Amino acid sequence: MSALIAVDIGGTTMRAASYPTNSLNPIKINKIHRVNSSKPVFQYLLELIQSVWVDSQEVLGLSIASPGPLDPETGFIFNAPNLPGWVDFPLGEKLRDTISVPLFFGNDANLAAFGEWKYGAGVGHSNLIYLTISTGIGGGVICNGNLLTGHKGLAAELGHIIIQPDGPLCSCGKRGHLEAIASGPAIVSYANDQIKNGQPSSLAQIIYFSAVDVANAARNGDELAIKSIERAGETIGLALASFVHIFNPSIIILGGGVTMSGNLLFDPLLQKFRSEIMEPIYSKDLEIVPAKLGDDSGLLGALAFARNQLKIN
Amino acid sequence: MSALIAVDIGGTTMRAASYPTNSLNPIKINKIHRVNSSKPVFQYLLELIQSVWVDSQEVLGLSIASPGPLDPETGFIFNAPNLPGWVDFPLGEKLRDTISVPLFFGNDANLAAFGEWKYGAGVGHSNLIYLTISTGIGGGVICNGNLLTGHKGLAAELGHIIIQPDGPLCSCGKRGHLEAIASGPAIVSYANDQIKNGQPSSLAQIIYFSAVDVANAARNGDELAIKSIERAGETIGLALASFVHIFNPSIIILGGGVTMSGNLLFDPLLQKFRSEIMEPIYSKDLEIVPAKLGDDSGLLGALAFARNQLKIN
Repeated sequence: MSALIAVDIGGTTMRAASYPTNSLNPIKINKIHRVNSSKPVFQYLLELIQSVWVDSQEVLGLSIASPGPLDPETGFIFNAPNLPGWVDFPLGEKLRDTISVPLFFGNDANLAAFGEWKYGAGVGHSNLIYLTISTGIGGGVICNGNLLTGHKGLAAELGHIIIQPDGPLCSCGKRGHLEAIASGPAIVSYANDQIKNGQPSSLAQIIYFSAVDVANAARNGDELAIKSIERAGETIGLALASFVHIFNPSIIILGGGVTMSGNLLFDPLLQKFRSEIMEPIYSKDLEIVPAKLGDDSGLLGALAFARNQLKIN
Repeated sequence: MSALIAVDIGGTTMRAASYPTNSLNPIKINKIHRVNSSKPVFQYLLELIQSVWVDSQEVLGLSIASPGPLDPETGFIFNAPNLPGWVDFPLGEKLRDTISVPLFFGNDANLAAFGEWKYGAGVGHSNLIYLTISTGIGGGVICNGNLLTGHKGLAAELGHIIIQPDGPLCSCGKRGHLEAIASGPAIVSYANDQIKNGQPSSLAQIIYFSAVDVANAARNGDELAIKSIERAGETIGLALASFVHIFNPSIIILGGGVTMSGNLLFDPLLQKFRSEIMEPIYSKDLEIVPAKLGDDSGLLGALAFARNQLKIN
């Protein structure tokens, strides 16, 4: 018997699990919520990996889904804004100093796409777009049965398509990106701006409200909250039209916390998408579906990726 | 000895050539400028193919670069706006009625990208973006050493990325696409609008001016003409930033008549592109170069594609 270790490094939560080579049921699974402490992120990571390691079986590889951009060949992290100290961080090099099994690296959204393709909503498709809409907006693309990685593994940053030149500031420092208009924080920011402009809303009673609060207010009929989510949905629909002209996929998979808003988001999204497609043939047979793997998408994506690289299954 | 036939169906000019299997020097080459006549486009095409056919050698295949969304498997043309009657046109089926050699089909810009990759400016690259800026704006993408085609062969319509929601009307009927702001006709249309708004320009003396006239006026220092090309360049630069975040290529190849404007176009294009890239790593080692194959890009792309499909070279 042999095993694979998968890790999903999130901004606040890190997950890790060991899996047999032939099953999706973990042998051990663990997660850590990082708290503000002086302990370096890398130390958290090593302890987490240790906690799921299986000594009784040969470990064939360790596969890591990390926020990007990163170099999947070397595991070098160019910039992970939510991980203190992880700018030009040689994660691969540092792991190789202590761990001797083969290492695999991928951008978290890329690997989540890979996981949805192999085990989730995208099984059987060869041309797939995956978008996760959460604190940021990440993407992953399967083209002709291959994960799109690009020259240095930096491809599929779908959240950074420019939607509105000179529009709102994005977390990356540039303007008008999809992420800057339709992510969770962008929804909150828009609602806040409208309240400051005098728009009435039940949200005005909450000092620091979140995208979840906006969704709840919208469900209770708050007009500004509805409008805030609608605007995000329309923007995603518009971006998807561009992506469909670019990739001609047979399926689009949407994940991430913001999609929990349900029809409040999906109705305007689909309406805008349909109105912006240039030829009906692009949407014929095209499925637009929610992600299936939920919080496990990063782990299962990392697992699927390692199995693929090692030619297991 | 055996031969391949390549055809490039343009809106006004059709080209065809026969090639040996091991050379880029045509055995026979011919072109037809279609004039307004009652003769159907398909009849022109058959006569042109006949004119370059080689009876003394076995013809291994006929490869056709065609405008418009088409199904590369069947040769079914969904919509080629510049070819009268070619809406839902079963080109493959009709050709198979008269020609018995293997047939290959591709979108003209996709195949031009393939040609530039195999024989032109993109040799040696595995992640390449090709953009042709002319009457329309077409694209072709090589990802991880494969031509991006998508589920039904409709991918890489890079001219139809949405740049400015609710912006100028595009030839496809939707609004704000790259093609609607930066193609030759879009440059002319913008200059015309500004003249109507009272902007002084030497172009005002020409009743129907073209993008070539705008480029000439710009070279003579006409401010409106300079501004018109600058606007197109900036818009292309902006779109390229999105494409680079999406594809992470090692080379971008720019072709088509509008690129003949030279630095008038390229200077604002590069400046905008550099200012919109979210991480310097995306432009490190990235080449942005003019296309090499010129008017032969469609023919050589069709040839390269057929050789690839037949596993020759």
